[in-house]
Amino acid sequence: MNGLLEHLRAGLPPEALITDPDVTASYAHDMASFCDAGTPAVVVLPRTVEQVQHVMRTATALRVPVVPQGARTGLSGAANASDGCIVLSLVKMDRILEISPVDRIAVVEPGVINAVLSRAVDEHGLYYPPDPSSWEMCTIGGNIGTASGGLCCVKYGVTAEYVLGLEVVLADGRLLTTGRRTAKGVAGYDLTRLFVGSEGSLGIVVKAVLALKPRPPRQLVLAAEFPRAATACDAICRIMERGHTPSLLELMDRTTVQAVNRMAGMGLPDTTEALLLAAFDTPDPSADLAAVAELCTAAGATEVVPAEDAAESEMLLQARRMSLTALETVKSATMIDDVCVPRSKLGAMLEGTAAVAEKYGLTIGVCAHAGDGNTHPVVCFDHTDADESRRARESFDEIMALGLELGGTITGEHGVGVLKKEWLARELGEVSVELHRGIKQAFDPLGLLNPGKVF
Amino acid sequence: MNGLLEHLRAGLPPEALITDPDVTASYAHDMASFCDAGTPAVVVLPRTVEQVQHVMRTATALRVPVVPQGARTGLSGAANASDGCIVLSLVKMDRILEISPVDRIAVVEPGVINAVLSRAVDEHGLYYPPDPSSWEMCTIGGNIGTASGGLCCVKYGVTAEYVLGLEVVLADGRLLTTGRRTAKGVAGYDLTRLFVGSEGSLGIVVKAVLALKPRPPRQLVLAAEFPRAATACDAICRIMERGHTPSLLELMDRTTVQAVNRMAGMGLPDTTEALLLAAFDTPDPSADLAAVAELCTAAGATEVVPAEDAAESEMLLQARRMSLTALETVKSATMIDDVCVPRSKLGAMLEGTAAVAEKYGLTIGVCAHAGDGNTHPVVCFDHTDADESRRARESFDEIMALGLELGGTITGEHGVGVLKKEWLARELGEVSVELHRGIKQAFDPLGLLNPGKVF
Ligand SMILES: Cc1cc2nc3c(=O)[nH]c(=O)nc-3n(C[C@H](O)[C@H](O)[C@H](O)COP(=O)(O)OP(=O)(O)OC[C@H]3O[C@@H](n4cnc5c(N)ncnc54)[C@H](O)[C@@H]3O)c2cc1C
Ligand SMILES: Cc1cc2nc3c(=O)[nH]c(=O)nc-3n(C[C@H](O)[C@H](O)[C@H](O)COP(=O)(O)OP(=O)(O)OC[C@H]3O[C@@H](n4cnc5c(N)ncnc54)[C@H](O)[C@@H]3O)c2cc1C
Repeated sequence: MNGLLEHLRAGLPPEALITDPDVTASYAHDMASFCDAGTPAVVVLPRTVEQVQHVMRTATALRVPVVPQGARTGLSGAANASDGCIVLSLVKMDRILEISPVDRIAVVEPGVINAVLSRAVDEHGLYYPPDPSSWEMCTIGGNIGTASGGLCCVKYGVTAEYVLGLEVVLADGRLLTTGRRTAKGVAGYDLTRLFVGSEGSLGIVVKAVLALKPRPPRQLVLAAEFPRAATACDAICRIMERGHTPSLLELMDRTTVQAVNRMAGMGLPDTTEALLLAAFDTPDPSADLAAVAELCTAAGATEVVPAEDAAESEMLLQARRMSLTALETVKSATMIDDVCVPRSKLGAMLEGTAAVAEKYGLTIGVCAHAGDGNTHPVVCFDHTDADESRRARESFDEIMALGLELGGTITGEHGVGVLKKEWLARELGEVSVELHRGIKQAFDPLGLLNPGKVF
Repeated sequence: MNGLLEHLRAGLPPEALITDPDVTASYAHDMASFCDAGTPAVVVLPRTVEQVQHVMRTATALRVPVVPQGARTGLSGAANASDGCIVLSLVKMDRILEISPVDRIAVVEPGVINAVLSRAVDEHGLYYPPDPSSWEMCTIGGNIGTASGGLCCVKYGVTAEYVLGLEVVLADGRLLTTGRRTAKGVAGYDLTRLFVGSEGSLGIVVKAVLALKPRPPRQLVLAAEFPRAATACDAICRIMERGHTPSLLELMDRTTVQAVNRMAGMGLPDTTEALLLAAFDTPDPSADLAAVAELCTAAGATEVVPAEDAAESEMLLQARRMSLTALETVKSATMIDDVCVPRSKLGAMLEGTAAVAEKYGLTIGVCAHAGDGNTHPVVCFDHTDADESRRARESFDEIMALGLELGGTITGEHGVGVLKKEWLARELGEVSVELHRGIKQAFDPLGLLNPGKVF
């Protein structure tokens, strides 16, 4: 332990090291607060690639595990400390190194906050689509670590599609460059994508080349109220089947709408069972909005209200973005599922989730990136009540089982972390898990990077 | 050898095996005819996953190398036979298993021809974007093997972005399922992407879940003539910088235009130095087309001609698609480069290529997926002339060196194969190559799959 600090100090400025246990403890876990976390030996906040290399060389020499961290907004415990580990927080490496409107790329350090990058590229008429609802807090490094999604994905895809190239410090401190600055490139295996979503288990991302899009017009949102979740899902299927390309297609159930109203007095229609939000960001969205309104009505919507303007649209987005946070106030604790099913199975998924809630006598609020079939059933429970906590975990698991049964995945965007490890093995199967181990072995033979996570 | 055939026969119908050396020889190489190829021991044409598994189990038991093949339209020798190998041709596994307009996916076997799939999904109002110019011949399995691109990529991206999930027979015959049928999913490492572009070196793709888009309106093409390649590149940079999203942005140099005219009497303007094609597939492309026309004129275009209608547009696309084939008729042989540089470096790349042609006294025709910075300098030479052949190879290499110098990659879409192996190592660097070897080891410990390719 002393040896560790001495070693670290040899290549780091004093302010890059935190050893005060009160402070290091505050770095122990991400926002999945119900997941186990250990006690870090030390927290390191490097500012340069060389400093990260020094940390990894030290870790390798002394066989100390390393847990990379961004803003710790993760929802699966993937950034949680393990006992005696080095927490390697990348938040101080937060420079935007380059924005090129001709090449439509940005080059950034991993600690850049998602919203900061979004605003910076916006000034150049550009757009960085991936927009997790935590965008004002979470980092690009964390987004890459979790391959995170957001509201825009139904049209623009997830983080993975915007990462062109990476610089990565490997477990032994060597620097790897992957991918490219070019729009296309197929030289060798796609190591870039292998890192995206690897939850810090293969290397430390220290630089990223990101693809940008031209900034689209402000989106206009339409809200539709449905008497049943299943009919809202019908509408969603029809919208997609007809070939529309909404820039957002989201769902909030009654529990969610009520929680948001309670939290922020939004005045959303809280007697409705399912509130669907659809948006278009084309130069003239009126035809699309009218067609979608008609499809919603035909599917059984009781009310269809197009936003008056961009400001009202932004208000509806705000409401959707605060859904998870609002649902966390329903009870003392939550477990947030992240099941993604084929769009055509969304109705079955939501009805099944309601049945699980009833079976276990629990409140399970659901918000969903519905256009992508990605649901977030939020199991609300009182963590001081042992029985309710047990039922919460069981229902949480049953929802994943249902997702798999419907041909879906246990995680659409929040990742595996410690929360869904056993479930990952179930989803992947033995052959795949064995190959995962082989890859891990090739990148991190000593198993020092984020041990105990993912698989 | 006899042991091999016996083993194979035990699990394959007679018609799935070709042993006649005259016929097997015709499977020896892809369309990069100047690359070395060995003599296969046998060609197998399986129709089922089980048959593929049988082949791989046999290969593993007897330590026989296996070379997977699609339509052999590849341009880097990646499907070339090695001596004594089993050529495993997937062309008979050519069923489209499912097309779902609601989920916007298709599920296909690997031998489906790209254009066949495109037409089949078109009937459902859907669109499978990746469109290599060889689309009437090449297979989805080959497209996945090479991560192939095409004309649409500047707007719609490459094959990689459309592969959601795979079934893969591993070297030892086990069946691996990767990825998903859902729009999103981050469960575990991205094995799907690892296979895309791996050129048959990690496993045999036997099924693919592909993402589809709604069918866009027919694109309208504009043609602009430039007195110099560099000014055409300026126009391209301005078009992208201004935030336009063309569905195609292509370049043909004078050599290419003349070759196409000679081949098909297209009547393209063949006194021009660089012909730029831009297209838009939005509902009303007129504003974009007008703006692009203006940018072209401002950059120095001598003539700007919008296509009258969809038919004329299609004719221009045909001309562009036959460019490589037409350039192959210039001399007895060609070597086709595939360098991709950052868009902002395209002008430097084309000027540098012209300088290489002059230095070596060779004809090097260039067509380019210019919007993506992806150039195809085609070195034309007389393969019976030893000195010219040597100069051809040197200039081919010098063009790759130039691409790397400009921050580009040696291959934007055609892959590495046997043609660019040493260059891949140069581009990737030692650390990356070592990790490539580690991954190969995890998937194919005996090194049986497509040995001698890629790295
Ligand atoms: C209110 C709220 C709303 C949310 N909404 C969404 C949403 O809409 N969509 C969505 O996808 N997620 C959402 N999330 C989850 C979370 O914000 C994302 O997973 C985000 O990407 C995490 O970023 P972070 O910087 O906080 O990373 P962390 O939580 O600190 O880390 C996440 C993972 O990445 C690894 N990591 C971090 N930095 C690096 C690096 N430089 N190199 C290697 N590995 C690294 C960590 O080890 C960990 O495994 C939400 C969370 C909250 C609290
Ligand atoms: C005239 C012409 C124009 C072209 N234009 C373009 C273009 O615009 N863009 C572009 O990207 N390419 C282009 N190409 C190159 C070529 O068509 C593509 O690389 C195509 O994807 C190859 O497909 P194929 O079926 O012929 O595969 P093959 O050439 O048979 O094989 C390609 C690679 O994939 C592997 N492979 C094939 N099937 C499988 C499988 N089922 N499982 C595992 N591995 C497999 C092979 O081992 C090999 O490594 C062009 C070629 C020609 C001749």
